[in-house]
Amino acid sequence: MIELYHNDMSVCAAKVRSVLAEKRLEWRGIHMDLRAGDTQKPEYLKLNPNAVVPTLVHDGCVVIESTVIGEYLDDAFPQHPLRGDAREKAQMRLWTKQLDEGLHIAVGNLSLCIAFRHQHLKKTPQELKAYLDGIPSAETRERRRLAIELGMDSPTFLPSIKRWEKFMADAEAALGDNPWLAGSTYSLADIGYVPYMIRLEHLGLEALWRGRPCVASWRQRLFERPSYKEAVEKWLNPKYLELFEEQRPAVRLWVRQRMSTM
Amino acid sequence: MIELYHNDMSVCAAKVRSVLAEKRLEWRGIHMDLRAGDTQKPEYLKLNPNAVVPTLVHDGCVVIESTVIGEYLDDAFPQHPLRGDAREKAQMRLWTKQLDEGLHIAVGNLSLCIAFRHQHLKKTPQELKAYLDGIPSAETRERRRLAIELGMDSPTFLPSIKRWEKFMADAEAALGDNPWLAGSTYSLADIGYVPYMIRLEHLGLEALWRGRPCVASWRQRLFERPSYKEAVEKWLNPKYLELFEEQRPAVRLWVRQRMSTM
Repeated sequence: MIELYHNDMSVCAAKVRSVLAEKRLEWRGIHMDLRAGDTQKPEYLKLNPNAVVPTLVHDGCVVIESTVIGEYLDDAFPQHPLRGDAREKAQMRLWTKQLDEGLHIAVGNLSLCIAFRHQHLKKTPQELKAYLDGIPSAETRERRRLAIELGMDSPTFLPSIKRWEKFMADAEAALGDNPWLAGSTYSLADIGYVPYMIRLEHLGLEALWRGRPCVASWRQRLFERPSYKEAVEKWLNPKYLELFEEQRPAVRLWVRQRMSTM
Repeated sequence: MIELYHNDMSVCAAKVRSVLAEKRLEWRGIHMDLRAGDTQKPEYLKLNPNAVVPTLVHDGCVVIESTVIGEYLDDAFPQHPLRGDAREKAQMRLWTKQLDEGLHIAVGNLSLCIAFRHQHLKKTPQELKAYLDGIPSAETRERRRLAIELGMDSPTFLPSIKRWEKFMADAEAALGDNPWLAGSTYSLADIGYVPYMIRLEHLGLEALWRGRPCVASWRQRLFERPSYKEAVEKWLNPKYLELFEEQRPAVRLWVRQRMSTM
């Protein structure tokens, strides 16, 4: 049996749901309320010491980290393979590695600067301080403090946009030669980016693929797959979509004024 | 044909040489002089836009990033496999991911704070400024500035030690149940840590495995493999070993005074 501890709006959880859908695997979901601290509870920490979603449990085998879970599912279930030959596997891993080593943090920062900060700003100063003090890493704490206090004026906002702009330029070049990121095979690399491509649209950052026809067409092809509806779209939480929508005009104005390259 | 752009003391290059040795693969090496800027040259940047070693070229296929190269070699050459079943593969990837997402930067920081800073301190203030100004990431620039100026008093020194201490505690638990990090199979996870385990010893940080018998015995078994001599030991550069040796007494004193847990 496959069990998945997940959350509706978590990009990493959506990535694993997409893998499960592409491989036509049956699974039982345990939905975690992140704001209520479900991932901080002792019994969950035994499965996932990092206190994040997703966590996969397959016949007693616990696997954490969405990128590792994707490879695990493709190793354990050979049907509908999501990796090409050795050469394409290496390309695939270079793309998923970028998500894990910068792009994920960047999109989290953009989401906080643009939208989620408004939830934190409803807290009392004491509650906000307690939230920030509870973040173990000094670097993460400072990045979140700046995002909540300054929003799009945070010194970390532009670098996060620039990091995604670099991805778009690299992806445009790769997709000019091949239909999918890693080459001729639709792979875990493409799946990995699906929840990010929709989040960037929700955040009003569609300028990132303006003038990049290969990325725009790839995005369209990703969203047309049945797995997108099943694993991503049907889980989108209207409460958060509204929050994003309210902020989009300000984001588009910021982009027009500040990003001559976009 | 397999060609490897590498460097004698680079931990990531040593990792790939170890994989090649374990798999008994023939290769041709191109040794890069990092201080002379060999990795910054336009022809190398075409192979490796990150301007780092190693880069593998196998029959025209270019692969970068040591973790990705390790998996590529195990995918492309099935002999002497370095990965277990699906479950062990997932464990293996969680270990190598930690190197890429924190431990590598931590050991680089420790090496700079303890030893390499003394090379930078021989520069003129103008040369040092030019070096620091040339680092694209603001975060990396600030970390290196602090390491060069303050050495073991840098505010980043203790967190880098703590990150490795966490690894040692996790590894001690894993190696209590199994002979190798990922389980019963010697894997890319064990190989990945070899150059780091010798670097920490060179830096005088052997207190990290004091009182951790499983880690100490695993370390010993890693160093007894023929691949260690061939891929790591014979490449160690005496000039750097001397630099490390000079600093070891000060490091051991710092550890005794500051790390009650070690």
